[in-house]
Amino acid sequence: MKTPVIIVNSKAYKESTLSGDLKLANICKEVAEETGVNIIYAPQQVNLAYIAKSVNIPCFAQHVDAINPGSYTGHVSLLSIKEAGALGTLVNHSEKPMLIKDIDFIVSKAKEMDLETVVCTNNVSVTSSVAALEPTAIAVEPPELIGSGIPVSKAKPEIVEKSVEAVKKISDKVIVLCGAGISKGEDVKKAIELGTEGVLLASGVVKAKNPKEVLLDLASGIL
Amino acid sequence: MKTPVIIVNSKAYKESTLSGDLKLANICKEVAEETGVNIIYAPQQVNLAYIAKSVNIPCFAQHVDAINPGSYTGHVSLLSIKEAGALGTLVNHSEKPMLIKDIDFIVSKAKEMDLETVVCTNNVSVTSSVAALEPTAIAVEPPELIGSGIPVSKAKPEIVEKSVEAVKKISDKVIVLCGAGISKGEDVKKAIELGTEGVLLASGVVKAKNPKEVLLDLASGIL
Amino acid sequence: MKTPVIIVNSKAYKESTLSGDLKLANICKEVAEETGVNIIYAPQQVNLAYIAKSVNIPCFAQHVDAINPGSYTGHVSLLSIKEAGALGTLVNHSEKPMLIKDIDFIVSKAKEMDLETVVCTNNVSVTSSVAALEPTAIAVEPPELIGSGIPVSKAKPEIVEKSVEAVKKISDKVIVLCGAGISKGEDVKKAIELGTEGVLLASGVVKAKNPKEVLLDLASGIL
Amino acid sequence: MKTPVIIVNSKAYKESTLSGDLKLANICKEVAEETGVNIIYAPQQVNLAYIAKSVNIPCFAQHVDAINPGSYTGHVSLLSIKEAGALGTLVNHSEKPMLIKDIDFIVSKAKEMDLETVVCTNNVSVTSSVAALEPTAIAVEPPELIGSGIPVSKAKPEIVEKSVEAVKKISDKVIVLCGAGISKGEDVKKAIELGTEGVLLASGVVKAKNPKEVLLDLASGIL
Repeated sequence: MKTPVIIVNSKAYKESTLSGDLKLANICKEVAEETGVNIIYAPQQVNLAYIAKSVNIPCFAQHVDAINPGSYTGHVSLLSIKEAGALGTLVNHSEKPMLIKDIDFIVSKAKEMDLETVVCTNNVSVTSSVAALEPTAIAVEPPELIGSGIPVSKAKPEIVEKSVEAVKKISDKVIVLCGAGISKGEDVKKAIELGTEGVLLASGVVKAKNPKEVLLDLASGIL
Repeated sequence: MKTPVIIVNSKAYKESTLSGDLKLANICKEVAEETGVNIIYAPQQVNLAYIAKSVNIPCFAQHVDAINPGSYTGHVSLLSIKEAGALGTLVNHSEKPMLIKDIDFIVSKAKEMDLETVVCTNNVSVTSSVAALEPTAIAVEPPELIGSGIPVSKAKPEIVEKSVEAVKKISDKVIVLCGAGISKGEDVKKAIELGTEGVLLASGVVKAKNPKEVLLDLASGIL
Repeated sequence: MKTPVIIVNSKAYKESTLSGDLKLANICKEVAEETGVNIIYAPQQVNLAYIAKSVNIPCFAQHVDAINPGSYTGHVSLLSIKEAGALGTLVNHSEKPMLIKDIDFIVSKAKEMDLETVVCTNNVSVTSSVAALEPTAIAVEPPELIGSGIPVSKAKPEIVEKSVEAVKKISDKVIVLCGAGISKGEDVKKAIELGTEGVLLASGVVKAKNPKEVLLDLASGIL
Repeated sequence: MKTPVIIVNSKAYKESTLSGDLKLANICKEVAEETGVNIIYAPQQVNLAYIAKSVNIPCFAQHVDAINPGSYTGHVSLLSIKEAGALGTLVNHSEKPMLIKDIDFIVSKAKEMDLETVVCTNNVSVTSSVAALEPTAIAVEPPELIGSGIPVSKAKPEIVEKSVEAVKKISDKVIVLCGAGISKGEDVKKAIELGTEGVLLASGVVKAKNPKEVLLDLASGIL
């Protein structure tokens, strides 16, 4: 994963059903091209293949299930997202929390399949625990700040700093990101200063009146 | 829903990741056109928008979550599948069983949104229970026969018959289908004779050497 | 189940860990003896055998899992609650919602084992759906009123009335109770007038300064 | 936790409903007294208070939910098991797998409340991950060997050894146990030789014709 990185998660918002996801993915692509910042887009689950095949932007799934391909109606396998064109997946988002054994399964299988994993964590101790599994990246997101507009990098800098420290103690291969409440370039700048290599965000972009303006501002925090 | 109907569920098989789903959806389209039988295709979740926009065939989601659009990473809303081009969704498949309150939520919201629901049930009493919610259709599938190659319509005709009876007692608007082990035209014919208006199947088509041949045979059971 | 009935659910409140459960179960027993009203007590799960063996009061489990006895660490089987001395169990409480197939399993197994089931429902359509499974009783509890102190029988009488109607249409063997916000004799009186045969409540008794006074008042609504 | 230790999990077996749990807990007590080996008994959930108050043996819950005491019907809080007389709890058994954030919650709260936690893990990487949370103990149990009669300490000694190593690398405060397939003194002896400080077992004792004989043999592997 090229860092610094901005990951935009379109969640299940009404603003990001098919036409919204298409518009937002294209905006991410434009801003990535204009600024040189790596931007990853995680569209709604049912739009993944469509967006990944229509827009030249790195795509992630928002979630995968801990299964091998098979007789699993309604489940999403790592193989299905890879064939759909995704480069990786979010794992254990606080809105889709996972069993420890399933996080381990997915992180481990994804490595074998050359897929990237960004595992979300809610605090420093869970960050340490996930670091031992060595995913591609960990995104620290205190759940109480998600969607709040209060940036974790300013409201709880100590959680971000201690998470960076905790991860580096266990594995220096794991990238640390942060999320929750991020919506401005200065939030991103602060996140980078605290030792992270990027941010994960959703409503700040998806629900913005002018998502391109917001993304350009966010990217400016990196440059 | 135009009946008799054949619903093909591509599950999470390795044979039905993106290129497989595309090939199978096209075969369904051809057979529907050649025979006049209504065939619905339920692709893998991440392929839904792609298949629905690429192939002129009625598409279903394999599962939706009981949510309104919003801050739900990794979840699938009814709105997202509608915008992706689906006409409806499978609900409560035995491989993705659901809370009774969530089945109620989805069946009720889907009606408001002009989406169809096919709720799967595992026995006669659950069939009765679901009938009271008045989904578009109920698909009776004894779980022990799923993927077995032993057709429910032949192995357990009494479950199919009693389910038809149970549903009609509660609501004559609800369509009854059956599934599990169906792979041949004669299985479909028997299912129709028992009072159903179609079948739900997966491996019989998806894992077939010649899916078109199988679908033509299945359709012959209706004609 | 002898009706009218008052079911007291001690949930997982700090007031009802072992010594609290013991005190409350004894108060229920006293009030039942003094008033002749049938009172059932559902202690915390880990206290079930202890309370059922120590206090001469009909006891219920708050929840059981849809399993046969076996290799299921941390699960609760119908057999284990029967041997512990319970007469039955709550099922599908809004705080422990269940799969439709599991509700069916438990209601059906409980009948074979002479155990009673009180299945909670959140609205009229789910009430109809559960009625088709013919549990001993259904307790209608709009989740938004649970613990609110606003009695369902006064705030949403139409839900109670329509639930009674819906159940009677499907099976006249199923008892209808209501819950949520019940804390006074007049709430119980109103519930009975709306066609129910009793109430299910928790915080109104468990968190009361004087639980005996509250229970005597509740019983007076029946007498 | 005094080590070496033998933890007997009574699961949800028909052999360990109330009278069985009582008999087995008493046998554990006798063997502990006769041999001096620390034996912990984890009765069925609904029997916990009853057994802990009737038999002078250290008791564990088989599972607790990640909640604070409150309005949680059918849930088990750490406070409820403490008041019931338990010294601790099993966590994340493969038959009751848990979210990583819930394991973290329970391990952390239990420490504050002076309760012990034995977290089960299915492989070496999950063992490392859990070690970072610093529970009282970790019990490595490859799920495929549970109930098999094939002892992990003999069939997969490398998993046990590597788990001991992985834990010690992260924290030397965490006790390592192993489980799955253990039924004889020689299995325990081998487990201790591999660096563990005890075993977790269930069917080997609960389903034995002569549980006392089995426990005496198990204890002999330690002495």
